[in-house]
Amino acid sequence: MRSIDLNCDMGESFGPYTVGADKEVMPHITSANIACGWHAGDPMVMDQTVRLAVENGVNTGAHPGYPDRMGFGRRFIDLPFEELKNGIIYQVSALQGFCVAHGTKISHVKPHGALYNNAMADETIARAVAEAVAAVDRSIPVFALAGPQSQRMAEICRDNGLTVFFEAFPDRLYTPEGKLAPRTMEGAVKSDPEDIAEQAVMMAKEGTVMDFNGNPIELSAQTLCLHGDTPQAGVLIRSIRSCLEKEGIEVKSV
Amino acid sequence: MRSIDLNCDMGESFGPYTVGADKEVMPHITSANIACGWHAGDPMVMDQTVRLAVENGVNTGAHPGYPDRMGFGRRFIDLPFEELKNGIIYQVSALQGFCVAHGTKISHVKPHGALYNNAMADETIARAVAEAVAAVDRSIPVFALAGPQSQRMAEICRDNGLTVFFEAFPDRLYTPEGKLAPRTMEGAVKSDPEDIAEQAVMMAKEGTVMDFNGNPIELSAQTLCLHGDTPQAGVLIRSIRSCLEKEGIEVKSV
Amino acid sequence: MRSIDLNCDMGESFGPYTVGADKEVMPHITSANIACGWHAGDPMVMDQTVRLAVENGVNTGAHPGYPDRMGFGRRFIDLPFEELKNGIIYQVSALQGFCVAHGTKISHVKPHGALYNNAMADETIARAVAEAVAAVDRSIPVFALAGPQSQRMAEICRDNGLTVFFEAFPDRLYTPEGKLAPRTMEGAVKSDPEDIAEQAVMMAKEGTVMDFNGNPIELSAQTLCLHGDTPQAGVLIRSIRSCLEKEGIEVKSV
Amino acid sequence: MRSIDLNCDMGESFGPYTVGADKEVMPHITSANIACGWHAGDPMVMDQTVRLAVENGVNTGAHPGYPDRMGFGRRFIDLPFEELKNGIIYQVSALQGFCVAHGTKISHVKPHGALYNNAMADETIARAVAEAVAAVDRSIPVFALAGPQSQRMAEICRDNGLTVFFEAFPDRLYTPEGKLAPRTMEGAVKSDPEDIAEQAVMMAKEGTVMDFNGNPIELSAQTLCLHGDTPQAGVLIRSIRSCLEKEGIEVKSV
Repeated sequence: MRSIDLNCDMGESFGPYTVGADKEVMPHITSANIACGWHAGDPMVMDQTVRLAVENGVNTGAHPGYPDRMGFGRRFIDLPFEELKNGIIYQVSALQGFCVAHGTKISHVKPHGALYNNAMADETIARAVAEAVAAVDRSIPVFALAGPQSQRMAEICRDNGLTVFFEAFPDRLYTPEGKLAPRTMEGAVKSDPEDIAEQAVMMAKEGTVMDFNGNPIELSAQTLCLHGDTPQAGVLIRSIRSCLEKEGIEVKSV
Repeated sequence: MRSIDLNCDMGESFGPYTVGADKEVMPHITSANIACGWHAGDPMVMDQTVRLAVENGVNTGAHPGYPDRMGFGRRFIDLPFEELKNGIIYQVSALQGFCVAHGTKISHVKPHGALYNNAMADETIARAVAEAVAAVDRSIPVFALAGPQSQRMAEICRDNGLTVFFEAFPDRLYTPEGKLAPRTMEGAVKSDPEDIAEQAVMMAKEGTVMDFNGNPIELSAQTLCLHGDTPQAGVLIRSIRSCLEKEGIEVKSV
Repeated sequence: MRSIDLNCDMGESFGPYTVGADKEVMPHITSANIACGWHAGDPMVMDQTVRLAVENGVNTGAHPGYPDRMGFGRRFIDLPFEELKNGIIYQVSALQGFCVAHGTKISHVKPHGALYNNAMADETIARAVAEAVAAVDRSIPVFALAGPQSQRMAEICRDNGLTVFFEAFPDRLYTPEGKLAPRTMEGAVKSDPEDIAEQAVMMAKEGTVMDFNGNPIELSAQTLCLHGDTPQAGVLIRSIRSCLEKEGIEVKSV
Repeated sequence: MRSIDLNCDMGESFGPYTVGADKEVMPHITSANIACGWHAGDPMVMDQTVRLAVENGVNTGAHPGYPDRMGFGRRFIDLPFEELKNGIIYQVSALQGFCVAHGTKISHVKPHGALYNNAMADETIARAVAEAVAAVDRSIPVFALAGPQSQRMAEICRDNGLTVFFEAFPDRLYTPEGKLAPRTMEGAVKSDPEDIAEQAVMMAKEGTVMDFNGNPIELSAQTLCLHGDTPQAGVLIRSIRSCLEKEGIEVKSV
């Protein structure tokens, strides 16, 4: 039987500000990418999110980002290699403490926002991510984008002794090359629950996705990324999971 | 043979700002209290300081503080218990990552500045420190002030399964009760190297100190705290260590 | 004809986080207390909030607070006098720039949260507020709590050449002494729109309020503070304003 | 008689960290570029630096930068136009408050570090600087690099109704095109006091500079930028000023 992991960004609230539908979403996913207090989250939120994940049997992954709450880690900051690497060690290790406090450990690392995108486009940034994770614990896998864009990043992670799991996006349009279609393209982000569920099933069952021309292309992914920041996210994710299970796909963590 | 540990606050530089004589001091101490990026330090400085400590065979302790770079963690912030506890978990764990990256582990936790003072004066704060350290790793000892002031804090740490080591200050004046004389009192902070070395020897050899009336009082300490923030700190600390060794006291980590 | 000012805290969003019903509330108030980027708000939010206030003919007041986003400025930080004073100059002046950019100027200063409460309890803090405002512009009035608690603060403001306007809370219960009943007391915070409107009318029309024993007490206020952080705040405030106007009270800025 | 302004970055200390020789340098310059608390400085330092400038009859300019203490504003952050513009309004206005408190006003704006360099390379960034200054006060001039690199930025400032003053660097090597030679080139930064003074005199007296081939090129500048971050900066700057005055050049603010 084929199986698939469902991951979602979690723990993005901060101090007096609450965002995301973490409580509604957590029961239906298998891997949480937990913000580490730099682009989002804080020690209180990290504690609560790790607890919630553990209570739901969900994997606790670190979701490090640029030191930029104002921009939510979504924009480039031109950090030197060593500073970026040490910043990722700092964030991942900080989350490790909350995992230990709740009787678990970090399950994976997924870079956030601009750090995720830049790690695919720039080898130095990819190396900062890989060396940071390897420095903390070589047994922690890294999540990277399925498709051609992250091949070099994956290689660099493996050179550092790390396992890489690839993630695909059930709610995003893909180009014929297997890249994410730019958000500016019409229909780049799907909102229809059935469309999203259908793409999720295809990804998990066949390892393929329809490109924007309607042709199936190969896209090998071990985990699917779902979005938890809308009010109806809990319902949507539960229904995607249910569709996957009806198709005989086991939903379980990587 | 009697032995004593010498500890010193290290890694208090930040970004473009360099303070302290870390390189000069490190070879002569046995325990470094390393700032964790909240009141001082940053990931770059943490990395360099842990490396420097490991190169010199010095114990790497975490030195968590209030989130207050502007005030260097020296003033009270009225944080709720859970936020303080989680903030300490965050800082200690972040440093743990750099320790692991350099092949070692956290040797002890010493709260910084206002957090150190408040933990002795307020049971809730003491409990936040104790529970945070216990949550990360119950085998990590906590440093507390030798003398009557920290007895309740020590008790709370032990109730949480933690070991407590007491520290005395060779450069501070003591009251007849074994408390630190307030800094406003004349002569409260010693600056004469021979005076300091003499008090260090007395503390390490006899477990006593002269109070400000010139009477010897008991003061049991396993570690002596030295100050590394003056230009001549390296020379001073080397000479204190040398005096201790001449008196047959072994200088080694707790 | 009697008149009253209606003030409300505005501009408390930050970066990716949106709170408050600013757009719904702004048309119905006469004075906005605008966060200055320390406890809440940021330059983008300040710009938008000043613009929104100007578009609605609402007074633009500065709402400085402690440098504590995590705690929303609601808890005490033991800052020295000079640092507090300079921090308030910094915040008020920063907002002044956005006021100038939108063709207006700061109409008043109302300290936020713990700073507001502490300024009434501690003369040094009151003096920091007063001297800071006076240093920027002696013609800017300060808002203080109506009732006995802020008499010393008001005196200190006046000693610094400042005008003081007193504010009362239509949704809070009062003690027989004219103090706010502690939030822990049952019924301390009113939620029934009619109750709130009734208390607002009494405050504006008679300069009195019913204490928690049901006896009317004097409470002289030039401005009423309303809360804009609930989804229905816009409707509630519009209805309070409408009740005031029906009673022949002119709602206009101080 | 020709005259020249001498400007220097000031007020770059932060909280517990002191850098720069502000007290030694201030008596010998005519324009201070004062950090505004984002890349360096803080409200305490701003207050002290404006006071020191006023005491010495020195112009108080704002020196806004990227929100990046860790990197001292020296690296690019990919901020959207509106956020950059509002961030500059915020910083300049905050400094304005301290100027007013000390009986003066902002004399000029000089962007700091990466913001300065990027404003010359990117029109959107130049526009953010220009529109921000114009929004606060159109009568505040902007400092820009003398030579071909900042022509577009100067144009954009003038389009916004601003005056531009050009600055040259007595301690930097120039290319034949009148650009700063890259710091990686040997001899790019001069350290010999006589060399520096000689270049300063040539710049002020002739409006020329020797390029790195030893040929004189035109370089029109109204202000010379000197560096105040070395221990001997005070002595160096006094001697440069003295050389200028001996050559009959009046040293006075723009």
